[in-house]
Amino acid sequence: MKRLWFIIISVLLFAAWSAAQNGPEALSPEEMVRASQIYFDRCSGCHGATRKGATGPSLEPEQFTVKGPEYLKAVIWGGLPGGMPDWGRQGVLTDEDIALMTSYLQSPVEAPPQLSFGDIQETWKLIKAPEDRPATPQTEREWQDYIGVILRDVGKVAILDGDSKDLITILDTGFATHILRSSKSGRYFMAIGRDGKASLIDLWPQVPEVVAEVRPCLDARSIESSKYEGFEDSLAIVGCYWPSHFVVLDGLTLEPIKVVSTVSYAKGVGERIDEARVAAIVASEFFPEWIVNIKEAGQTWLVDYSSVMEPGRPLKITMIDTELYLHDGGWAMGRYFIVAANAVNKLIVIDTKTRQVAAEIEAGTRPHPGRGANWVHPELGPLWATGNIGSPEMTVVAVDPENYPENAWQVVERIEMPYTGTLFIKTHPKSPWVISDFTVSPNPEGAASLCAIDKESLEVNSCWQVPGAAEVNARMVHTEFNKAGTEFWVSAWAPLDKQSFIVVYDAQTLEEKTRISGEWAITPTGKFNVYNTANDIY
Amino acid sequence: MKRLWFIIISVLLFAAWSAAQNGPEALSPEEMVRASQIYFDRCSGCHGATRKGATGPSLEPEQFTVKGPEYLKAVIWGGLPGGMPDWGRQGVLTDEDIALMTSYLQSPVEAPPQLSFGDIQETWKLIKAPEDRPATPQTEREWQDYIGVILRDVGKVAILDGDSKDLITILDTGFATHILRSSKSGRYFMAIGRDGKASLIDLWPQVPEVVAEVRPCLDARSIESSKYEGFEDSLAIVGCYWPSHFVVLDGLTLEPIKVVSTVSYAKGVGERIDEARVAAIVASEFFPEWIVNIKEAGQTWLVDYSSVMEPGRPLKITMIDTELYLHDGGWAMGRYFIVAANAVNKLIVIDTKTRQVAAEIEAGTRPHPGRGANWVHPELGPLWATGNIGSPEMTVVAVDPENYPENAWQVVERIEMPYTGTLFIKTHPKSPWVISDFTVSPNPEGAASLCAIDKESLEVNSCWQVPGAAEVNARMVHTEFNKAGTEFWVSAWAPLDKQSFIVVYDAQTLEEKTRISGEWAITPTGKFNVYNTANDIY
Repeated sequence: MKRLWFIIISVLLFAAWSAAQNGPEALSPEEMVRASQIYFDRCSGCHGATRKGATGPSLEPEQFTVKGPEYLKAVIWGGLPGGMPDWGRQGVLTDEDIALMTSYLQSPVEAPPQLSFGDIQETWKLIKAPEDRPATPQTEREWQDYIGVILRDVGKVAILDGDSKDLITILDTGFATHILRSSKSGRYFMAIGRDGKASLIDLWPQVPEVVAEVRPCLDARSIESSKYEGFEDSLAIVGCYWPSHFVVLDGLTLEPIKVVSTVSYAKGVGERIDEARVAAIVASEFFPEWIVNIKEAGQTWLVDYSSVMEPGRPLKITMIDTELYLHDGGWAMGRYFIVAANAVNKLIVIDTKTRQVAAEIEAGTRPHPGRGANWVHPELGPLWATGNIGSPEMTVVAVDPENYPENAWQVVERIEMPYTGTLFIKTHPKSPWVISDFTVSPNPEGAASLCAIDKESLEVNSCWQVPGAAEVNARMVHTEFNKAGTEFWVSAWAPLDKQSFIVVYDAQTLEEKTRISGEWAITPTGKFNVYNTANDIY
Repeated sequence: MKRLWFIIISVLLFAAWSAAQNGPEALSPEEMVRASQIYFDRCSGCHGATRKGATGPSLEPEQFTVKGPEYLKAVIWGGLPGGMPDWGRQGVLTDEDIALMTSYLQSPVEAPPQLSFGDIQETWKLIKAPEDRPATPQTEREWQDYIGVILRDVGKVAILDGDSKDLITILDTGFATHILRSSKSGRYFMAIGRDGKASLIDLWPQVPEVVAEVRPCLDARSIESSKYEGFEDSLAIVGCYWPSHFVVLDGLTLEPIKVVSTVSYAKGVGERIDEARVAAIVASEFFPEWIVNIKEAGQTWLVDYSSVMEPGRPLKITMIDTELYLHDGGWAMGRYFIVAANAVNKLIVIDTKTRQVAAEIEAGTRPHPGRGANWVHPELGPLWATGNIGSPEMTVVAVDPENYPENAWQVVERIEMPYTGTLFIKTHPKSPWVISDFTVSPNPEGAASLCAIDKESLEVNSCWQVPGAAEVNARMVHTEFNKAGTEFWVSAWAPLDKQSFIVVYDAQTLEEKTRISGEWAITPTGKFNVYNTANDIY
């Protein structure tokens, strides 16, 4: 009997091997490690750690039985109009890398490991305990005007003075730090790396320093502090891309408190989603709650943290079915959280006061709000806007159902833009403009350009290609205002081997005032002013 | 390169095959199906669908590299004192079955499939729509005194008249129906089968009938209705053993509304539990909430259903970390839910008013309350009690912290019982006794016996072996009172090939009044009086 099975299995194995003659070369262990790293760095964000697809399509091996390796190579090299980057043309991946990835993507998917709470606890490092930190700001600078600049590909954050533009310090954070968030008081910056490492930066010492670290995820995008009255700065949350969970932390030490799985069903009424990634998280000021968006599950969870320090660590989670592929979003009126749903090109409005879905709005193609832009229009009332990655449009929505019920949750304007590929728009109450980038425009001229939109006429006032950006293959990305709202900064994000820089503009005249650069300025992306970030000014 | 791999794999395969010469015979597909079915019927309840262990130890193949097949066979045949049944000695499994299971348990674990919401929806069958059901009771019997009797191994429920003892009808339900629950009004019985099939039984027609069915799980133990004011009978929930999720249903049609995964981390601070089974569920009358116990995760979730019919189907879940291997439990004072935690031999008290853990109490070994027993003691005040499977003890706890703060959540008595193996105790306000069975006693005399405990002296008043029970290898199981509290019924649960019966006792004198039996009375287990079940009288 056993001998028979052995023969049968051997025959089957031989048949499989023969069939595989047209398939990929098996990868060596070294090749596998390198391919996994490239996949994590460049692919998993859109296609998922288990290759099931999200913002990008599924890359499971079955997908390539018809299309084949040559198609795959061509796409990895030259990109696709829907948003797939041209990794070969950009020089990010070599021909050898592309051949490797072509084999890798035809190999069976291995899910990354899970993490237990104990695994997470072991990564926790309290570098300076709260009682050893200064009781008052030790700097004479206006620390609330600090601007944290993410140096993406070196895993660092530079802290600059928003007034003098001095470089104050450069701190080590996680790989490809995704965002900075401010604690409610503004005293702490929290950084989250794409490698899942969270860092707590204290801005009150003479020179800002990292006071705690923890790594709750193997892949992450989001971190937030507790902002409700009585809980200011006291708790934090990290949302993971992998494993599919979020972790509640002590806000002052990053000590892990509790971990909650986000494995769930698509919109509560679909397939079970094992890779249910946590996208944007924001803190409510209405309730002691975080608004946690679960991408592939199309669910928004309102996580009430008010009793998590009590026995049994109760965490009250209101699970709301929203829409598929939630990504990022921001506040309107301090009450409505507006989040992009990439799979359906919609904006979902969560009323965080009633804990209900208030509206669904048709955006452009693949809306990418960042946190969006808020302003009050003289006739239309309060507005909120988003850019779109896949269409040349800034989508402007009316957001005050109480005082402007007739146009609430309507798109009041679809402002035509010269390019697609907008990642971020931003404004400030003191500036007449909404500034838009076109970071992932397939057109290099677009990627190097900015536009200023008139908040009153809802028209494009002016667009300009930033001098010197295209020359270093830089993409303009992410606008941030200083505390006073008199200037805005935009990164010229060049490849690793070229000199990046930050351009500072006058927030009224749009004139370039200065540039910030130096050897340290490697791949600067997001910039976060302490005051604006802590107070949700955008 | 490919040829080399083929040779390497062939060599490895041969080595594995050689090593396997001391291992189990590979099972044929037919053997595999039969073994999986036996595993599901007899093993997975305690050892888990993925064999990771819960109430019983892990049965993963690694466990048997040292202990080996002969040990395994001996244990399956003869049981173990901790609670492992003697399947061979009982005649439930043949020698051939035991040999098959010994091989099966040494084979790799294959997790059962998942179910999507769509899969569940496809099983939904509305047999009679609410508008086609009678508006008033169509029977002249007192339907609130109906007693539903589970006929376990034939997947049926018999409905009897609690007064006349007439058999009214026999209805098809799921395999090995686990429990019946009443809707708030009492009009509907909800049955849940171990195979995950839920049935809604309308008691108002002249003859009760199944009006809706759905199968939200492949393995299940719990079902409950919504009981809060304004939601009476309108919603239902089924908790699954596999897949690890619960499903919210329309209470009048069983139409699936939303599915929520219970994959979570042990006590919020441990390993990720993929097989996180839903044990007992009860409905709060304080809040529009179900209390859902997640066994291997050691978490109790308070599931607020009040807004699930609104857009986005919001479900507010308060996740509380409690203790490992939560099993069943019941209400005390209508406010405290007391649930057994089998891994730590504790009772966990959830205050459903404050949504907090109120106390942890040391029980006996493997407490198994069913829903427990409630009464008011003249000196000690309100008490609640549980039996224990693994120790000869009825554990009596004081449960009124407001009026009896000095002894609240203390064990006021550990009443010594003559046997271990108690599955259920039960009482009624009109009876001076708490009745205990010893269903899983390893002693056949114990399994055939009952004891009456005096609610005032807290002593065993009398114990008796039920005449005729041992003769048919019957185990006495599960006491239920009639509506008036004048009589109680206990099942004499015999094997499939022997005649089971139900004994009816006088609730005051403990005299046997009559026996209920017939060809239909195959493996009767749980019995549920409509009024007592709907009103939590126990």
